[in-house]
Amino acid sequence: MLPWDAELAGRLDRTVIDSTLLRDNPLGDPHQRPIWVYLPPGYDDGTDRYPTVYVIQGYTGQVTMWANRTPYRRPFIETADEVFASGEAPGCVVVYVDAWTGYGGSQFVDSAGTGAYHSYLCDEVVPWVDARYRTIAAPASRAIAGKSSGGFGAMITPMLRPDLFGAFATHAGDTLYELCYLPLFGPAARQLRDYDHDIGNWWADFRSRTAFTKEADQNLLMLLGCSACFSAGPDGTPELPFDPRTGAPRPDVWQRWLAWDPVRMIDRYAEALHSQRAIWIDAGTRDEWYLDLGAEAFRIGLERIGVPAERIRFELFDAGHGAIDYRYPLALSWLSHQLER
Amino acid sequence: MLPWDAELAGRLDRTVIDSTLLRDNPLGDPHQRPIWVYLPPGYDDGTDRYPTVYVIQGYTGQVTMWANRTPYRRPFIETADEVFASGEAPGCVVVYVDAWTGYGGSQFVDSAGTGAYHSYLCDEVVPWVDARYRTIAAPASRAIAGKSSGGFGAMITPMLRPDLFGAFATHAGDTLYELCYLPLFGPAARQLRDYDHDIGNWWADFRSRTAFTKEADQNLLMLLGCSACFSAGPDGTPELPFDPRTGAPRPDVWQRWLAWDPVRMIDRYAEALHSQRAIWIDAGTRDEWYLDLGAEAFRIGLERIGVPAERIRFELFDAGHGAIDYRYPLALSWLSHQLER
Amino acid sequence: MLPWDAELAGRLDRTVIDSTLLRDNPLGDPHQRPIWVYLPPGYDDGTDRYPTVYVIQGYTGQVTMWANRTPYRRPFIETADEVFASGEAPGCVVVYVDAWTGYGGSQFVDSAGTGAYHSYLCDEVVPWVDARYRTIAAPASRAIAGKSSGGFGAMITPMLRPDLFGAFATHAGDTLYELCYLPLFGPAARQLRDYDHDIGNWWADFRSRTAFTKEADQNLLMLLGCSACFSAGPDGTPELPFDPRTGAPRPDVWQRWLAWDPVRMIDRYAEALHSQRAIWIDAGTRDEWYLDLGAEAFRIGLERIGVPAERIRFELFDAGHGAIDYRYPLALSWLSHQLER
Amino acid sequence: MLPWDAELAGRLDRTVIDSTLLRDNPLGDPHQRPIWVYLPPGYDDGTDRYPTVYVIQGYTGQVTMWANRTPYRRPFIETADEVFASGEAPGCVVVYVDAWTGYGGSQFVDSAGTGAYHSYLCDEVVPWVDARYRTIAAPASRAIAGKSSGGFGAMITPMLRPDLFGAFATHAGDTLYELCYLPLFGPAARQLRDYDHDIGNWWADFRSRTAFTKEADQNLLMLLGCSACFSAGPDGTPELPFDPRTGAPRPDVWQRWLAWDPVRMIDRYAEALHSQRAIWIDAGTRDEWYLDLGAEAFRIGLERIGVPAERIRFELFDAGHGAIDYRYPLALSWLSHQLER
Repeated sequence: MLPWDAELAGRLDRTVIDSTLLRDNPLGDPHQRPIWVYLPPGYDDGTDRYPTVYVIQGYTGQVTMWANRTPYRRPFIETADEVFASGEAPGCVVVYVDAWTGYGGSQFVDSAGTGAYHSYLCDEVVPWVDARYRTIAAPASRAIAGKSSGGFGAMITPMLRPDLFGAFATHAGDTLYELCYLPLFGPAARQLRDYDHDIGNWWADFRSRTAFTKEADQNLLMLLGCSACFSAGPDGTPELPFDPRTGAPRPDVWQRWLAWDPVRMIDRYAEALHSQRAIWIDAGTRDEWYLDLGAEAFRIGLERIGVPAERIRFELFDAGHGAIDYRYPLALSWLSHQLER
Repeated sequence: MLPWDAELAGRLDRTVIDSTLLRDNPLGDPHQRPIWVYLPPGYDDGTDRYPTVYVIQGYTGQVTMWANRTPYRRPFIETADEVFASGEAPGCVVVYVDAWTGYGGSQFVDSAGTGAYHSYLCDEVVPWVDARYRTIAAPASRAIAGKSSGGFGAMITPMLRPDLFGAFATHAGDTLYELCYLPLFGPAARQLRDYDHDIGNWWADFRSRTAFTKEADQNLLMLLGCSACFSAGPDGTPELPFDPRTGAPRPDVWQRWLAWDPVRMIDRYAEALHSQRAIWIDAGTRDEWYLDLGAEAFRIGLERIGVPAERIRFELFDAGHGAIDYRYPLALSWLSHQLER
Repeated sequence: MLPWDAELAGRLDRTVIDSTLLRDNPLGDPHQRPIWVYLPPGYDDGTDRYPTVYVIQGYTGQVTMWANRTPYRRPFIETADEVFASGEAPGCVVVYVDAWTGYGGSQFVDSAGTGAYHSYLCDEVVPWVDARYRTIAAPASRAIAGKSSGGFGAMITPMLRPDLFGAFATHAGDTLYELCYLPLFGPAARQLRDYDHDIGNWWADFRSRTAFTKEADQNLLMLLGCSACFSAGPDGTPELPFDPRTGAPRPDVWQRWLAWDPVRMIDRYAEALHSQRAIWIDAGTRDEWYLDLGAEAFRIGLERIGVPAERIRFELFDAGHGAIDYRYPLALSWLSHQLER
Repeated sequence: MLPWDAELAGRLDRTVIDSTLLRDNPLGDPHQRPIWVYLPPGYDDGTDRYPTVYVIQGYTGQVTMWANRTPYRRPFIETADEVFASGEAPGCVVVYVDAWTGYGGSQFVDSAGTGAYHSYLCDEVVPWVDARYRTIAAPASRAIAGKSSGGFGAMITPMLRPDLFGAFATHAGDTLYELCYLPLFGPAARQLRDYDHDIGNWWADFRSRTAFTKEADQNLLMLLGCSACFSAGPDGTPELPFDPRTGAPRPDVWQRWLAWDPVRMIDRYAEALHSQRAIWIDAGTRDEWYLDLGAEAFRIGLERIGVPAERIRFELFDAGHGAIDYRYPLALSWLSHQLER
């Protein structure tokens, strides 16, 4: 395997979408967003319509990172292409969507803290794609996939909009918040000792210097950013789900987070989940955020509400949270077979 | 400093107490318990009565471990003696109480899972000591101190029995359970994968071989043992506060644990806490169970209910959870000065 | 700061160099290599000649990774451009050289195990650049810089070829091998237990599956690759510097590695080092390979042989080995000022 | 199993030996040393003579620590007694020897830095025991056993004095110094940054405060102490085997350490090793000092010089360096069977 860029069998359109919904977003982030649309081999030579798979990034990810190269591996752009080029799976349009914010992510929700990223994805990106490409514009032919926070987005978006999405894949998606988020509160409270217990002081410091040169940066950024997404005040100010001096959960704010926990959303969105034709769930057994346990809890929840087992593909594999991009083409291939065409 | 046993200036009685309350305890643990009573220099030559400090062990500790030697340090038995021998503090009787169980500890509560250890301490050990030694048998002259689970015991016992205890010292005492206990659920659920998700299987395995030869042992033992203390069923069976497959908290069982969280007990036991004349709280800033944050939360709670600041001695110091025995004589000395005599 | 690609003030030529020296290399790696040549702002509008800074990658790095994006940071391609665009430093040509091999790296040496990468860099890349761009083709105007194994390459290349290079920058460059390499032998010997003590078995396994899905992969790859570079047999077979069963150093092979340790090369190459007009040395104080200590040892060695202190820029900073790309533009700016023009 | 002291079936004499050789030792440590002599069941009722097993402590250990209790385990004093009480092995006299020093240990060598601990053991303790107890005073009936530094002592003492010892057991004994000691030099050099690169400053600090309250303490103590044992100057000053600023090995001093590496001593002491009738070697496969690899190297060395395989008992087991006391009675039982009686 050569380490340099490979030619694609399909074609990748790298363009920009100008969002109306993201104009004047609270963080002043751009409303013109990169969007990459992959067209499978044969697309340009025919007239067929294709199912679509939307792909979203994890926390701090943005769309151009899909081109990043790592040693001895190929970017998903290329492994996704190979899924179709090899004939292993029937062609799909693959859409790489950007939902980055100044806090590192949007969690793909509408929030007074960051902006209307859920609506942007559903009401702007999807129609934009369907208008420009030969897609099959129906939920049975439209899936969404992602890892980590992207896996979270892939779980909740179809729950909220079953009229748009009829299948999804979550790789180590955020869920079971008592296990993945709550253990961060103690470390955060300690880290805030250096900032007079005020995350605003840390944020000002973080923005004033090279990012990620202090150990606290990763943890505090994620907690601040998720607070902006899940528990912003009416004016958009992120409210932390814990006491910054002791780390003790603040019940009312924490409850707002839990309301966004996919395992707790299952019953509320049972009907939407019943409408899904294909659900891929996987995670590494050593996931640092215990998202393997979250994955298991999500699967058990689906079983509890009666989602037929044959629609679910569940797998735990030997890995941590990082470097699991080799899982993405497996899910893409499976989804391609399940989507209606 | 020589590494071998030193002569004490005071005297240590090593004897046994025959408990009625511990007879027929659910685990079949001994009802005859070691008890060590330290008498300060001068005790044998005079007729004075002395305040008493009860000292309890942390999880998996039992009374004879107070004699363990570690390099370059001296056992608390000796550093406690020095507090009085040096003239730094007025003499106290120091009572080393055993509340070990087959699960490693009793948390100093009465429980269908382990036995009546709280009552044993309060209704048997205290009268036994007062009957045999020249103590001042009044709460203003009686304190209790401990570390870790012993610190927990030192917090709750005076809350429950202010008629007996009027002062206490907690070193890295268990509290703020969302930070110290909840993060153990994820690891435990993973560890139970090897045991078909059944902690009973692990317990059978643990008892059949050399203890602590598997990495899971420490974590599972503590969770099982605390379940026996905090959330045993009516027949004494420990009920885990989490789903053994996913680690998700079981709300009803977890609530029983939280009811024993000292920071949550403060309001219920405000009157008892108001009656305390001296409260020592400390912990290491790097405590692996975040008990420094728990200590801070406990202190803030005391302030909230109006315990006067001058009765509280609070300190965070640079350390983890282990090897902080050098803190004990500091608290003992301070308590000795605060107790009525 | 936007997370997407920025426009450069200068210009980046992304092209390919066809190497004669790398033809028929032992690993069958490509002899056509990517090469990126950056031309500073003003280059295209003038006729000036410029000093050149060659930039090389660390282990497992290849040239296209310079375009990788990480959150809240910008690629060196862009921060290097800004050094010149901002007027902070006078313009230089910056050449991004590829010396990747199937083992992950070449260590920029000529070796029977990997190929003639040192000669390729010195005798092919440098003349190729000088022939195509308006460089000042003299050692006083030519520098080389890199991090980790790239820092190693930046140290040894001017030692070997002072006729070509008159300045260099090493960021956490490999040196003091007893500290950075020897501690890997024990872990490697353990990891080889699963492979019948034969690294060939691991290599076959590694090539047969997704890379870096086993914990041993990173360590064994680097030891195998460096053995190919430093201690290949006449037929190119890598010889490990340790007994694969016990991890004990094999004195003769280990000696071949030590002969490539920059701190041990200082005396042999004193004259070449004296000829350098600018030497930048830095590393993070928490470098996982102790390359901060190596940096210090290298600096002390330069002092010992009498390199004037004013030619050396030395700094340790608070960081580990990773995520220190923000150091590169600092060195580039400094070198730009030191190079003759 | 009860956690309190058990009755022994045999008898333990706890007494003191007054050493002539340790008088005026360089560190001013006591020359009166505790010595515990265990006599097996039946000893007091008969006239038989018994083989003897000398047991020595690891680094920072002293003899009274053998009485320390740990949860769910019993002290070696008791598990050793059980070996004989159960009839599993024929009776031996077991002698617990103290060779502690102010630096934490003596490595059981004669040194200008600490004192004549090797001679004390061989020329004072052994005759003292043989004079007072019914031992079989011959090498074929005399063994020595220990763990960690005690395992080192158990390896080298019979090499130096085959006229005294004819069998030994090493549990995770120090050997293969490039793997167990050299990786400590880098951390030590960093730790010495806070002490102006002078270990004397650290030592003064260490002695002035509570021990082991700084992370550097363990590592620096061991390196200083072993320097006192292995590489003291003529006046007894410990000379570090590494440059305190960079961690680079100092070849001449490091060579003095390597001369004490059991795997390197094998050829020099081949005859003594050939004379051993029983050699037990074990270690945990996750030993933090890689002493499992050292154990393997030692075993391979014994094979190389022709020690018959049937005299060697070798085992690696799943464990780290700590909490492996449950291995001691296994070796004691085996040795008891091998010793001549």
